[in-house]
Amino acid sequence: MADKKMLLTGDTPTGKLHIGHYVGTLENRVKLQSEYKTFILSADLHALSTLSQEPKKIKGYVNEVLLDNLAVGLDPEKATFFLESLVPELYELAAFLSMYVSHNRALRNPTVKDEIKMKGLGDAFSLGFVNYPIYQAADILCVKANVVPVGVDQVAHLEQSRELARDLNNACGREIFPVPEALIGRVGKLVGTDGNPKMGKSLNNTIFLSEEDDEIEKKIMNMYTDPNRIHATDPGTVEGNPVFAYLDIFSSDDKKSQIEDFKARYKEGTIKDVEVKTYLVDVMKDFIRPIRERRKSYENRPEELERIIKSGSEKVRKIVIETLNDVKDGLNFIL
Amino acid sequence: MADKKMLLTGDTPTGKLHIGHYVGTLENRVKLQSEYKTFILSADLHALSTLSQEPKKIKGYVNEVLLDNLAVGLDPEKATFFLESLVPELYELAAFLSMYVSHNRALRNPTVKDEIKMKGLGDAFSLGFVNYPIYQAADILCVKANVVPVGVDQVAHLEQSRELARDLNNACGREIFPVPEALIGRVGKLVGTDGNPKMGKSLNNTIFLSEEDDEIEKKIMNMYTDPNRIHATDPGTVEGNPVFAYLDIFSSDDKKSQIEDFKARYKEGTIKDVEVKTYLVDVMKDFIRPIRERRKSYENRPEELERIIKSGSEKVRKIVIETLNDVKDGLNFIL
Repeated sequence: MADKKMLLTGDTPTGKLHIGHYVGTLENRVKLQSEYKTFILSADLHALSTLSQEPKKIKGYVNEVLLDNLAVGLDPEKATFFLESLVPELYELAAFLSMYVSHNRALRNPTVKDEIKMKGLGDAFSLGFVNYPIYQAADILCVKANVVPVGVDQVAHLEQSRELARDLNNACGREIFPVPEALIGRVGKLVGTDGNPKMGKSLNNTIFLSEEDDEIEKKIMNMYTDPNRIHATDPGTVEGNPVFAYLDIFSSDDKKSQIEDFKARYKEGTIKDVEVKTYLVDVMKDFIRPIRERRKSYENRPEELERIIKSGSEKVRKIVIETLNDVKDGLNFIL
Repeated sequence: MADKKMLLTGDTPTGKLHIGHYVGTLENRVKLQSEYKTFILSADLHALSTLSQEPKKIKGYVNEVLLDNLAVGLDPEKATFFLESLVPELYELAAFLSMYVSHNRALRNPTVKDEIKMKGLGDAFSLGFVNYPIYQAADILCVKANVVPVGVDQVAHLEQSRELARDLNNACGREIFPVPEALIGRVGKLVGTDGNPKMGKSLNNTIFLSEEDDEIEKKIMNMYTDPNRIHATDPGTVEGNPVFAYLDIFSSDDKKSQIEDFKARYKEGTIKDVEVKTYLVDVMKDFIRPIRERRKSYENRPEELERIIKSGSEKVRKIVIETLNDVKDGLNFIL
C-alpha cells in the first residue's frame, strides 16, 4: 500500500451526478481505484458558493453524490470517501495557500471567468467563489495527491494547484507536495442532450446516472440531432451530432458495427432520426440499468453511507494534520 | 465568570508594538481584562499577507508581541492568549463566512483600499490579503465576541464582521453570533514622530514599547514640531504638533499644569523647541520604563511564554469547535 501513488478527485454536491460526470471522471475513478490510493472528496462547503441561500439542500446532495459514486462501482474498501467540512485543517491549509497566490491570478482563472459568464453572475459573486480554486488546491494538496482525474473544464483549476504546490515547496525550502497531474477522461467534455457543448444540471440537458427508463426514453427521443435535416431522406451530419456521440461513447463493443451502419445510412439519408434514437434509448438503458440497480442496493442503508463518509473523513483528517504540520514546520510556524 | 461578556482583540505579529498600539487598543485591554472574558489573538497566519517571502520571521514577532502585551500589564491569568494558526476550525469558519460576503464588498473595504495605497501594492497583492477582513471576522466571531477594542483604522474591518454576524444568523435561522461592538481607544490614531497622521513601523516614525532610554531621547529630540517656526521667538502652533500631542497623551496628571504653561509660552514664542522636547523625553521615559521592565521579567522565561500561548490556544479551540458546530447545525451540515 505504501508504494501506491495518491489519487484525489471529488464532487461539489449541488445535485445528482450525470453521464457527463461519468465519462469526465467517474469512469477513471473506478478504473484506477485499485492501482492508486484513492480519495474521493465531497466539497460540501464549496457548494455554498452557489447554494448560500439554500444551504439546507446540501446535505441531501452529499448523500446523492455518494450514492452515485458507489453506483458506478467505486468500492468503499478501496476508495476513501470524505467530507470537506469534516476536515478543518484543510481550510487552514487553504489559508496558507491564499497567501501565495495573487488576487489577480485567482481572478484570471479561466474556469472562474467561464462560470461567472455562464451563470450570469455579473459582479454578484461571493469572495468564497473567488477562493474556490484555492480551496480546490487545498483539497488536492492536503493528501499530497499525485494524480487528479478531472473533466477538461477543471484543468485550469488544477494548473493553479500545480503552481501552488511549487510555490509552497519553494517557500518551505523543501519538496512537501508532489506537483499533481491531471488525468483527463476519455471524453473531455460531453455534449448536452440539447447540443450545448456543456452539459449541466442547470442547463437541463443531462441524463442522470440514476435516471429511470421512462425518463431516459423521453430525454433521448427529444434529443437534438442535425438541425438542417428536415426529412429522413435528407443527408445528415454525424460529426457533432449528440445522438451519434452518445452511441459512440456508451455502446458496448458488440454494437460498433451496427452503429457504423447507422452512420453510413444517416449520411446517405436512408434512415429516420427516430430509428437511431430508439436504438440509443436501449443503449442508454443498458448503460444506466446496472448503475441504477447498484445505487438502489445502497439507498436503504443510510447508516452504512454515514459510516463510509465519517470513517473516511477521520482517516483523511489524520493525513491532513500531518501535511499541515509539514507546511508549518517548513514556514517556521509554531506546532 | 459565565455572565461576563466576551472581549476579543489581537495583533498581527509583524513587529514589536509601539505607543500607537498602546493608546489605540492595549490600554483598553488592560483596563477591561477583569470586566470581560478577554481573548487576545496573535494572527500569525495573517502576517503572511505581508511576510509571505520571509515567513520564518513571524515566529519571533509572535514572541515580541506577546511580550509587549504582558509588558503593558495584561495578566495571563485574566486574559487568554492564543495563536490563530493553532485553531484550524477558525479557518473553516472563515470559509463559511466567505460564502456570505460578496467579492465586491470585500474589495470595497476602506482599510483594504488604504493599505493597498499606503504600501504601494498596486495590483500586486495576494488573495489572502483580500481575505484578510474575513479572517478577522472569523477571529472575532469564533469566540462570539461582544466587544472589540480596536484602533480607528480597524473600524471598517469590524463593520464587515458586524454584517457577517447578522448574515450568518440570518442564514442559520437563529442568533448564533452577537453583533460585536467596536471600542475605540481614547486616541483614535496617534500621530507619528514625523508628523505623519499614521504611525507605523514601516514608516519609521514610531516609539516602541520596548524602546531603551537613549533611543527614546534620540527619537524625541528629532521629532517634527511646527515647520513654520524657525526661531524660538516665533509664535508656534500647538494644535497638530506631535510634541504637544504626546505631552497631552502620555503625561501623568501632576504634569498637566506644566504642560499648559509650555503651550502658552510656545504660542507666544517664549520657549525653545528643545526645552519642550527635553521635557517630553522625561515624560516618555517615565511612561515606557515600567513597561520595559515588566517586559524584561518575561524575556528570560521562554517556556512560560510558550505555555501561555499553547494553553490559551487549546482553551480557545474548544470554544471555536462549539461555534463551528453551531454554524454547521444552523446550515444543516453533517456534524
